[in-house]
Order: sequence, then structure tokens, then C-alpha cells
Amino acid sequence: MATIDHLGIVVKDLSVSVPIFEKILNTSCHHQEFVESERVSVAFFKMANQLDIELVSSADTNSSISKFITKRGEGIHHIAFQVTDIVAEMNRLQTEGFQLINNTPINGAHDTLVCFLHPKTSNGVLIELCQKKNRV
Amino acid sequence: MATIDHLGIVVKDLSVSVPIFEKILNTSCHHQEFVESERVSVAFFKMANQLDIELVSSADTNSSISKFITKRGEGIHHIAFQVTDIVAEMNRLQTEGFQLINNTPINGAHDTLVCFLHPKTSNGVLIELCQKKNRV
Repeated sequence: MATIDHLGIVVKDLSVSVPIFEKILNTSCHHQEFVESERVSVAFFKMANQLDIELVSSADTNSSISKFITKRGEGIHHIAFQVTDIVAEMNRLQTEGFQLINNTPINGAHDTLVCFLHPKTSNGVLIELCQKKNRV
Repeated sequence: MATIDHLGIVVKDLSVSVPIFEKILNTSCHHQEFVESERVSVAFFKMANQLDIELVSSADTNSSISKFITKRGEGIHHIAFQVTDIVAEMNRLQTEGFQLINNTPINGAHDTLVCFLHPKTSNGVLIELCQKKNRV
């Protein structure tokens, strides 16, 4: 059975949106970082069922996040699944006919290796595979 | 701490999309139903961290689901949170400045009472509150 690691929500400005989601979720943001590989700032909120809500923002107007906001506005952006062997799962999904955005895993937030599936082969849903590096 | 009940993904046709998500999630759909109050068909997949992915489709071209697909295409639609007292949570969020779509709870799938928050007050994220009826 699949395990969701986090849900990504894109926002324009973390300093505005973190307080909004603290009110909605009735909990405090527990972690923020800048992810160099993707040039994004992220903020995490823990859910009771062991996944995070991740707010993502980008100061870079050419980033995929900024382009997403220009095209669709702020909102839910991706679903990330925990995997124990990201390369095996990439191979499985590619064999099933899904298109990968990254041919090899890239560095993600929280010391992870990640890979995205193209939404055009998954009903418009951007899917991230996410492996903790200490599981390598 | 908040608990996610399910993630809603809108699709054009469940008969096409259920097999796609069975491949992505590597698990079988465990439940389908027609929700009379919202005139939608839904299909659920259980995740290991005790929430569901819900595929939603509507044959009614005037439904909010069909309008969403026309405007934005298929994709992630809403996040639903489990609550034990939906009216208390509606009051809390309204006091915090969030706008409710439903002034009173309506019947949802899986024998629940639900209420939606307007995405314009929550960074473009459509949020559903969801209370199991046997908790009333």
C-alpha cells in the first residue's frame, strides 16, 4: 500500500501563507528550509497521520513554481509518495507507461532523493517519489 | 494536530482513471459510490497512513466538478480533514476569517457530514471538513 510523504502547496510568499495555514491546521509550522537543487523555500506542517503539508515558494520568476502560480494561481501542486527504492519505483512506473520528469533522482528537501512524474500521464496530478537518503 | 481524511482528485471518467491510479499506487480501488447530495461518482484508494485518495467525476456538465475540469483540467481538487465536531470547527475557522461555502454541513461520501471552505481565503486550496456521522 502506498504511503504519502507530503502534499505540496505552492504559495507566493511563505511569510504570508505560513500564518494562514497555522490557523487552518491549528498547528505550528515545524520546519523551514531553502532547497538549493530546486531554488525554492519550503515550510512544513506535521499531520496526525504521519505526513506533512509542505508550502513551497520561489523568488525566481523563471522557476517552475512561479510559472505554475502565473498559470494556475496558488494552490495544491503535488502529492509525494515515500518509496524505499526510488530507482526500482521509477523503473516500475516507466514500464507501466508513465513519463518521468527526472531521469535520475535529484536532491529534495529533508535530505531526500526525489523524482517527479509528468502530470500528463497521471490525470493532471504531479506526483513526486521521495526516498530518505539514510535508506540508501 | 490535524488529520487528513482524504485527497480529492477530479477526473473525467472513473472507468479510465481507476486503472491509471491502480498502477500508480500499486493497489486496488476499494470502494466506489454515487454521492446523491453532490451528484458525483467517487472511487477510493487506501493509503498506508490512514487516509484515502478519492477520485471524483461528474456526468452533470453544470456541476462544480465539470466546471473545474473545463477551467483547470483534471487534477488535485481538495484536501479533506477529519473533524470530530464539524460545527465547532466551522465556527473556529469562520472566527479566524475563513469563508465557508456551506453554512450548514451537507451529506458527503462514506456516511459523513462535510463542509467546504472557499479557496479564496486559503491560498487557492479547496478545503473540506469531514465528520463521520457515527461520531455525532
